[in-house]
Amino acid sequence: MKVGIVGGGQLGRMLGLAGIPLGIECEFLDSSATAPAAAVGKIHVGQLDDEAAILSLAQRVSTLTTEIENISTAAFSGAARYCSVAPRPEAVAAAQDRLIEKTLFRQLGIETAPFVALSKPGDLDQVSVNADWPKIIKTRRLGYDGRGQAVVRSHSELAHAYKNLGAVPSIIEDWIGFDRELSLIGVRDRAGAIRFYPLCENVHINGILSTTVAPYDDSRLQLQAETSVARIMNHFDYVGVLTVEFFHTAGGLVANEMAPRVHNSGHWTIEGAETSQFENHLRAVTGLPLGSTKVRGCAAMLNLVSHMPDRPRVLQHEGVHLHDYGKSARPDRKLGHCTLVDDDRKTLISRLEALQSLIVKPNS
Amino acid sequence: MKVGIVGGGQLGRMLGLAGIPLGIECEFLDSSATAPAAAVGKIHVGQLDDEAAILSLAQRVSTLTTEIENISTAAFSGAARYCSVAPRPEAVAAAQDRLIEKTLFRQLGIETAPFVALSKPGDLDQVSVNADWPKIIKTRRLGYDGRGQAVVRSHSELAHAYKNLGAVPSIIEDWIGFDRELSLIGVRDRAGAIRFYPLCENVHINGILSTTVAPYDDSRLQLQAETSVARIMNHFDYVGVLTVEFFHTAGGLVANEMAPRVHNSGHWTIEGAETSQFENHLRAVTGLPLGSTKVRGCAAMLNLVSHMPDRPRVLQHEGVHLHDYGKSARPDRKLGHCTLVDDDRKTLISRLEALQSLIVKPNS
Repeated sequence: MKVGIVGGGQLGRMLGLAGIPLGIECEFLDSSATAPAAAVGKIHVGQLDDEAAILSLAQRVSTLTTEIENISTAAFSGAARYCSVAPRPEAVAAAQDRLIEKTLFRQLGIETAPFVALSKPGDLDQVSVNADWPKIIKTRRLGYDGRGQAVVRSHSELAHAYKNLGAVPSIIEDWIGFDRELSLIGVRDRAGAIRFYPLCENVHINGILSTTVAPYDDSRLQLQAETSVARIMNHFDYVGVLTVEFFHTAGGLVANEMAPRVHNSGHWTIEGAETSQFENHLRAVTGLPLGSTKVRGCAAMLNLVSHMPDRPRVLQHEGVHLHDYGKSARPDRKLGHCTLVDDDRKTLISRLEALQSLIVKPNS
Repeated sequence: MKVGIVGGGQLGRMLGLAGIPLGIECEFLDSSATAPAAAVGKIHVGQLDDEAAILSLAQRVSTLTTEIENISTAAFSGAARYCSVAPRPEAVAAAQDRLIEKTLFRQLGIETAPFVALSKPGDLDQVSVNADWPKIIKTRRLGYDGRGQAVVRSHSELAHAYKNLGAVPSIIEDWIGFDRELSLIGVRDRAGAIRFYPLCENVHINGILSTTVAPYDDSRLQLQAETSVARIMNHFDYVGVLTVEFFHTAGGLVANEMAPRVHNSGHWTIEGAETSQFENHLRAVTGLPLGSTKVRGCAAMLNLVSHMPDRPRVLQHEGVHLHDYGKSARPDRKLGHCTLVDDDRKTLISRLEALQSLIVKPNS
């Protein structure tokens, strides 16, 4: 069985790794022939918004999916002429645009931060000078890892920030005071069966995910998150893995954004769950039965950003699982991650802290 | 870091899969360009006893290792001119020849079944007509999965069996009454540090491994096995994974054979141990620190032999981990395996039995 994946980054690499034992061969579309997924399957070099390239990949495979949301959804949709396509192109399109995404959340009764659309410069006037500040301005499209957004502390800063972000269609959101960021990863198969992993607790540094610890044990929040994610999935007749990031506020969960794909906050499932998010995504999109999402103890994931630590030094840390994406180092680039698994949460956290202090670059 | 592996079968494939997250790229020598390892790295097509082919691979990598014992040890040894080589060629040579292997076991004080060398037809006379029967005749070289051996029930059958096996240098061994077959997998790094996995209990059908369940919990036997394996490793200044198969008899463990490589009875370590045998072999041969061999509950491995079962049917079995080697079906060929992990041994066994009855071919 052959699966085409739009994008050949680390998510593609880990999808490919999960596919091989299942007898699923992955091929990738990526702008670079040496993308991380090159280690696990054929790369077709092309742009992710190149319709012809996506359609050409579709003709080589039995199922087409994506590891990234910023692709040509027109081509992704058109690919259905040649092979099965999952998830629904409409879900990918919604995740590309914060206004569509948040409007959908509201329609589905999923709480979001109050927001106003800034579609043209004149819309800035809709934001009252006397509003609560700070707010956060986010471009509707192409924002990730903290890019395409800025904190705005007053109305006078707003026009400047809008211009700085390129004066592109944006939204301005109320600043939500939250205790932590949580994410929920679910997977839905073709028949509509859904399985959830437990809530993950995420810590960002400079807008980039730094650590995830799972499970975040709160049955009330787990239920709230599952209800929200199930609504989105059922709305789209979604097939595959879907991730939603939430703010945990005093009033419960507030949805921030969704990713129509496997997600960085789910990397711990490779070692920490019976079936990884990568395997379950492939199972779902190829029509195979979903695997157990049962967790094995607690897990912690630590992203390796900007530089790779000394490999022997990391590996001598007992029980560490290293995932090197095979990328060249660059500031703020995710180059790999480490996972720790433990039966005891407290021990896990202290092991994570020890690992963190081990990998900090001496001069950073 | 690039590792060359002589052989590109399923063991090579799983070594390659373990290497990718570590940032280790594997290249393989195999007689087939479509060998199982082709999914995870470049295959150089050539025979495993072709010295030039082995030396050519050695010049492309920083470390050379093997996933099979029947290779040209002269070339494997000569490769040290170009790269580091592990394990020691002498250990591979010993594992190629049952007479050398068993003689070594005796020299190291490791109990074996009583045996007599049959180097030429005249040696058959050394076996007394009045000896205890049955005995088992095994060719010194190239025996695996039950091939190259025969049970002999009387002296009159001996000459016939010897001829049947090609009248090649062989040994004849006393038939050892045993309760079960156990294997021990150890890994030794360049500095001489050794780690062991727990004893595995193996069941063969028609001479081919069918199931492994681990750990086999017996601290006295574990110690005896560890002592034996450590002696062999230290004798060779061994680097990498070494497996020894034992008969568990009323008097304790009797060593049967060794494999200077990762082993079918250790496939469960992918899901059932902190660090798999594959990752630990790569860590050892590349000079990285060894990973934890701690087990996670109990694990059962079921080989998929001769035909692949229906994939959706297997995967709907909760918690099953499928490993498809990507091989075409052929009688008695190992095509894949399944692993189950459970905290409770009794539950594990009943799940294994359910899985076994699920995958039995209706007409077999």
